[in-house]
Amino acid sequence: MSKFARIPAALKRRASQIRVLLMDVDGTMTDGSVTLLSQPDGTALEIKTFDAHDGQGLTLAHTAGLRTGCITGRESSALLRRATEMKMEFIYMKQAVKMPAYEDVLKKTAASDHEVAYVGDDLPDLPLLRRAGLAIAVGNAVPEVKSVAHYTTKAVAGRGAIREAVELILHSKGIWEDMIDKARA
Amino acid sequence: MSKFARIPAALKRRASQIRVLLMDVDGTMTDGSVTLLSQPDGTALEIKTFDAHDGQGLTLAHTAGLRTGCITGRESSALLRRATEMKMEFIYMKQAVKMPAYEDVLKKTAASDHEVAYVGDDLPDLPLLRRAGLAIAVGNAVPEVKSVAHYTTKAVAGRGAIREAVELILHSKGIWEDMIDKARA
Amino acid sequence: MSKFARIPAALKRRASQIRVLLMDVDGTMTDGSVTLLSQPDGTALEIKTFDAHDGQGLTLAHTAGLRTGCITGRESSALLRRATEMKMEFIYMKQAVKMPAYEDVLKKTAASDHEVAYVGDDLPDLPLLRRAGLAIAVGNAVPEVKSVAHYTTKAVAGRGAIREAVELILHSKGIWEDMIDKARA
Amino acid sequence: MSKFARIPAALKRRASQIRVLLMDVDGTMTDGSVTLLSQPDGTALEIKTFDAHDGQGLTLAHTAGLRTGCITGRESSALLRRATEMKMEFIYMKQAVKMPAYEDVLKKTAASDHEVAYVGDDLPDLPLLRRAGLAIAVGNAVPEVKSVAHYTTKAVAGRGAIREAVELILHSKGIWEDMIDKARA
Repeated sequence: MSKFARIPAALKRRASQIRVLLMDVDGTMTDGSVTLLSQPDGTALEIKTFDAHDGQGLTLAHTAGLRTGCITGRESSALLRRATEMKMEFIYMKQAVKMPAYEDVLKKTAASDHEVAYVGDDLPDLPLLRRAGLAIAVGNAVPEVKSVAHYTTKAVAGRGAIREAVELILHSKGIWEDMIDKARA
Repeated sequence: MSKFARIPAALKRRASQIRVLLMDVDGTMTDGSVTLLSQPDGTALEIKTFDAHDGQGLTLAHTAGLRTGCITGRESSALLRRATEMKMEFIYMKQAVKMPAYEDVLKKTAASDHEVAYVGDDLPDLPLLRRAGLAIAVGNAVPEVKSVAHYTTKAVAGRGAIREAVELILHSKGIWEDMIDKARA
Repeated sequence: MSKFARIPAALKRRASQIRVLLMDVDGTMTDGSVTLLSQPDGTALEIKTFDAHDGQGLTLAHTAGLRTGCITGRESSALLRRATEMKMEFIYMKQAVKMPAYEDVLKKTAASDHEVAYVGDDLPDLPLLRRAGLAIAVGNAVPEVKSVAHYTTKAVAGRGAIREAVELILHSKGIWEDMIDKARA
Repeated sequence: MSKFARIPAALKRRASQIRVLLMDVDGTMTDGSVTLLSQPDGTALEIKTFDAHDGQGLTLAHTAGLRTGCITGRESSALLRRATEMKMEFIYMKQAVKMPAYEDVLKKTAASDHEVAYVGDDLPDLPLLRRAGLAIAVGNAVPEVKSVAHYTTKAVAGRGAIREAVELILHSKGIWEDMIDKARA
C-alpha cells in the first residue's frame, strides 16, 4: 500500500537516527516560484506557495518528536507565517551561505550530523547535503544535488516532497502507522 | 460520451441515496496550495484557488436539490467568499477535528450516514470517510485515504474533483441529463 | 511547420468567414482557476490569470481586422484591465445567461451567426456554441461542450487556446504569414 | 551526469563567445501567465512569477562575468524588483518593438552580435533572434521562434529555461564546474 513498504537497509539505518529535519525553502518547501505583486508605489510584495500535504507532514513530524527548521537566502513574512503555523522551531532567513545556520541548529539541539536530515534542491544546498546524515533531494532538484543525496523524493518540490521526507523518516523508525490516527486538520 | 455511462451497481446504489454533499477544502476544493502574500507590516494574507468547473458542479448540485457544505482546519475570508458565492449551506472553519461538524450537519439536515457523501484527500478526513455512505477520494489523495474510499475521482483536487463527485451522484440518480440545460454562468 | 498546415475543408470554410470572435472567460481565457485573496476586513479580492500567447493572438486578430469580445457570468476589474489592454471591443460581465449579450454583439456588428466564432468550455456556453458559425471548445472543455464544437483546441484553456483559435481563423483566411512580421510586444 | 556533457561543436562555438545575455520577460523569464489582482477601486495590480532555479542561474552568470538584461513590451514593478534582486544590468520595459533596446545594449557593452545571446518565446522576439549570435527558444516557444533558434531549451519558460541557457553558455566556455562551489543562496 505505502511507497515505503520496503526501504533499503542502508537508507533505513540513516533515516531511523534522525532527530532534526532541516530544509531549504524556495524550490524545496515551495515549487520554486518567486511570485511578486506589483504595488502602486513601485515596490513589490512577495507571494509564497506552500503545500497542504507537506504541512500535514510537518505536523506529524512534530507529533513524533522531530525538531524542524528551514534555512533560506531570501526573506518574507509569507514564510514567517507559514513556518510559524507549522510550528517549525528554527527559521533562518537571509542566509547567503547556509552552513552557519546549520551549525547553530546542531549546537541548539545537541545533535550530531548523523541525526540531521536536510532537504534541498539547488547548488547552495550542496555543503549541507554533504554533511547531513540523511541528504534528501526533491524530485526536481538539479543534477548536482541529486548526485550527492541519499534519497531523491518521487514528489516534486511544493507538491509533497517534504511530506515524503517525513514519511521516510517515520517509516524507518517504525512509527508511521501510529501517527495516522493522531492526524489533525 | 460521459465518463459515467456505466457506474458499478454497488457504487450507484450508494450514490443515488445522497442528499448531503460535504467536503474538505485544502487539497480537495483547492489543489492543496497554501499561498500567502507578504504584507509590509510582517503579516501575510491567504490566497486560495478554486476551480470554475467545480463551481459549476456545485451550482448544478443545488439545482438538483442537494445540500452542500465544507469542513476545514484553516480559516480564510477567501473560502468564505467562494463558499458563499457557490451558495454552500454549511461552512465550518478552524476544525482541528472534523467529526463534531459532520454530526452537526447530520442533525441540521436530519440525514443518516448513508445519505451523506464526503470528499477528502488527507489523514484528518479518514474518520468522516469511514462513516459517510459515499466516501470519495480526490485523484491525488494520500494512499491511506484512497484505500478507504468507495470512489476515487479521475480528476485531481482543484481541477474538477468536486465536479466529478457531483456528476457521479446526479448520474446515479438518473437526473444529470435534465441538469445540463439548467446550467447558468 | 505549423499545426495548421492542413485544415479540413469544411472547417476552413467555416473559419474563413469569421468577422467576430467571442469567448467565455473563466476556463477559456483563464485556466479555470478562481483565485481569491483574503482581506483583513473579511472580504476577498479576485485574481485572474491570463496567457501571454493568447494576448499576442488577440493583438494579431485585431491587426487582421477581427472584432473580439468576452461574455462571462462573473465580474472583476482584473478581467476589465486585461480585456482593455488587449483592446477587446465587447466586454459583458455578470451574464448568468449569455444569449442576450451574444445577440447584442450581432446587432452592433451587423454580423450573422456564420460570421461569429465562439470559444467556450462548460455547460453555460452550450447555447452560444450551437448558434455560432464556428464553435470552438478548449482542450480541457467538458465532454458536452466538445461534442457540439466544430473544433477542439490542442491547447488547454489559459495556455494558448485563444491563440490557437485565432491562428485557425487567420490560417483559414490565408493571412497568417502576413501577420507574423506585424507582431508587436 | 549533466545534460551538457556533449554540446554539438557548432553550438559550442557560438555559446563560448557570449558576453551579453538578453531575454524577453513574459513567457521567457515567466511561464507566460499574465496575472492581475482586482482592486476595490476598479483597477488591477500585476503579479509576476519567476523561477528560483533561473535566479540561481543568473547569479552564476554574473559570477562568471556575463552581463545580462531583459527587454519587454509590458511594465511592472514586480519585474523591476526581480531584475534588481537578480542584479540584471539592463531593464527595458514598454518596448513595443525591441530592436532599439537591443542596439542600445550593443552600444553600451561594445559587443557585437556574435557576443550576444537572446532568449525568447513569441513573434515579437523574432527580429532579435535573427540577429543574436546565440538565439535560444524556450521549450514552449511558438513554432516560428523555434525554427529560427540555434538551441531550444528542454525546460519550459518560468521553470528553468534561463538556467539552462546559462548552463549552456558556461559549459561551452568550460567554466561551469568552477561555478558550482561559488553558488550562494
